[in-house]
Amino acid sequence: MARAAYRYFQRIPTRWMDNDIYGHVNNVVYYSYFDTVINSWLIANAGLDIHQGEQIGLCVESHCRFLAPIVFPEIVEAGLRVEKVSRSSVRYGVGLFIEGQATLAAEGWFVHVFVGRAARASTPIAAHMRAALHTLLVEAPK
Amino acid sequence: MARAAYRYFQRIPTRWMDNDIYGHVNNVVYYSYFDTVINSWLIANAGLDIHQGEQIGLCVESHCRFLAPIVFPEIVEAGLRVEKVSRSSVRYGVGLFIEGQATLAAEGWFVHVFVGRAARASTPIAAHMRAALHTLLVEAPK
Amino acid sequence: MARAAYRYFQRIPTRWMDNDIYGHVNNVVYYSYFDTVINSWLIANAGLDIHQGEQIGLCVESHCRFLAPIVFPEIVEAGLRVEKVSRSSVRYGVGLFIEGQATLAAEGWFVHVFVGRAARASTPIAAHMRAALHTLLVEAPK
Amino acid sequence: MARAAYRYFQRIPTRWMDNDIYGHVNNVVYYSYFDTVINSWLIANAGLDIHQGEQIGLCVESHCRFLAPIVFPEIVEAGLRVEKVSRSSVRYGVGLFIEGQATLAAEGWFVHVFVGRAARASTPIAAHMRAALHTLLVEAPK
Repeated sequence: MARAAYRYFQRIPTRWMDNDIYGHVNNVVYYSYFDTVINSWLIANAGLDIHQGEQIGLCVESHCRFLAPIVFPEIVEAGLRVEKVSRSSVRYGVGLFIEGQATLAAEGWFVHVFVGRAARASTPIAAHMRAALHTLLVEAPK
Repeated sequence: MARAAYRYFQRIPTRWMDNDIYGHVNNVVYYSYFDTVINSWLIANAGLDIHQGEQIGLCVESHCRFLAPIVFPEIVEAGLRVEKVSRSSVRYGVGLFIEGQATLAAEGWFVHVFVGRAARASTPIAAHMRAALHTLLVEAPK
Repeated sequence: MARAAYRYFQRIPTRWMDNDIYGHVNNVVYYSYFDTVINSWLIANAGLDIHQGEQIGLCVESHCRFLAPIVFPEIVEAGLRVEKVSRSSVRYGVGLFIEGQATLAAEGWFVHVFVGRAARASTPIAAHMRAALHTLLVEAPK
Repeated sequence: MARAAYRYFQRIPTRWMDNDIYGHVNNVVYYSYFDTVINSWLIANAGLDIHQGEQIGLCVESHCRFLAPIVFPEIVEAGLRVEKVSRSSVRYGVGLFIEGQATLAAEGWFVHVFVGRAARASTPIAAHMRAALHTLLVEAPK
């Protein structure tokens, strides 16, 4: 997929410790870029309050295909899109690009279920958050 | 899936920093349990030499379903199985259990492509490693 | 310092991603062994309730000297001692040993200030926790 | 110390998983900001080649005082200075500021010993690197 497939981008510099023994960013760390771009966007644009909000998003499933190595000190540009909004869950698509490159270094998806902070049972996504999520919504890949 | 579906288990204590702001282990960290059990087994049982070996395994795809929270200081028991061995790649299945519990906290899979350390091009899995991988091989879930 | 200088030990297996590009455990990760052994001990032996307790410990200063490399998949044995207990703060000493070795791989110290969970202002250490901390107390090194 | 005490700054956005159970960035993660700003500067300005270079820097001691919480999604501005250059070692000073704030969130120091990549024995700092390090040199705090 190309950059045009994503609706929002965040710049995430790699860190020294992201590199593993084989000299590039460890596979695990890619997922930290995923939940960073997702939560950054939710906080800035969809009213997520991670400290006091009634409703929080918990990850129930994630996936990544690793297409090219990323190496510290490269900078990642993480692209975000919403592929599906259900009653209480959202599926995001994420694409990672090395700064200035047109082709993906990795692509994946991530599903949040929204729950009440105290009871941790799923609850319908609040109206203002649903409206915000729809601004990133695209046709999901088949 | 039950514990009997896995062929090898490793005990992985959680760490303080594994917990995130919502009070349980962050989704990203589950994948670090995956590559820890896989590489520990490969080093101990399949001749992987991460420092000098000619052939190394790179992750090209991974997936996780999160079924129940894990909370520091709980101890994880990571179950490992091999679901498919191809010419130069292996698909592992991983199940995470909280110590003493019968049901999964998470399950996922992880694909290694084996490459030459220098050229980073895929190479056929060495015979001794292939033989070792077959000892963990199960029927993959449909 | 020798093992006898510490009062409590915890076994912490290294993880694949602990290794950095130079082939051994990254310096940052040593500090995660520090706060893991400290908080594990506090939870098990001193009544720390990280989810609901009124009083929590925040790190205000830490230090480490790195004496020998640790390499995945080695297992760390983290030794803990208390070097000073003040009104609302504690200084711990931590020593990291590779399993089965007599000499330190790293040694350091770590200061907790205990605060109220809500106000985040320092409060006198609760009596039961103070009593527990004294069981690990040693003469601090000059 | 004020911003003027540092000679080089790098912008390091926090990540979701940096936050711990108490709602702010975990103490361990501060040290990852330290080695990120140090190695980024060494690569960009002092000729450090982390993949192939003959000489690499290993951390032998580090220290941090935590002065104020940092909370995701805040952005850290990491300030760097050199406090001492010896035959084969360097002591850096690092200050962490939250973007736009005048006062330190944390300050610390970090000592690199430079060694040959293969033998891992200390070697005199190469002339070009020594010259670069001197451009960041300040009077060390007493």
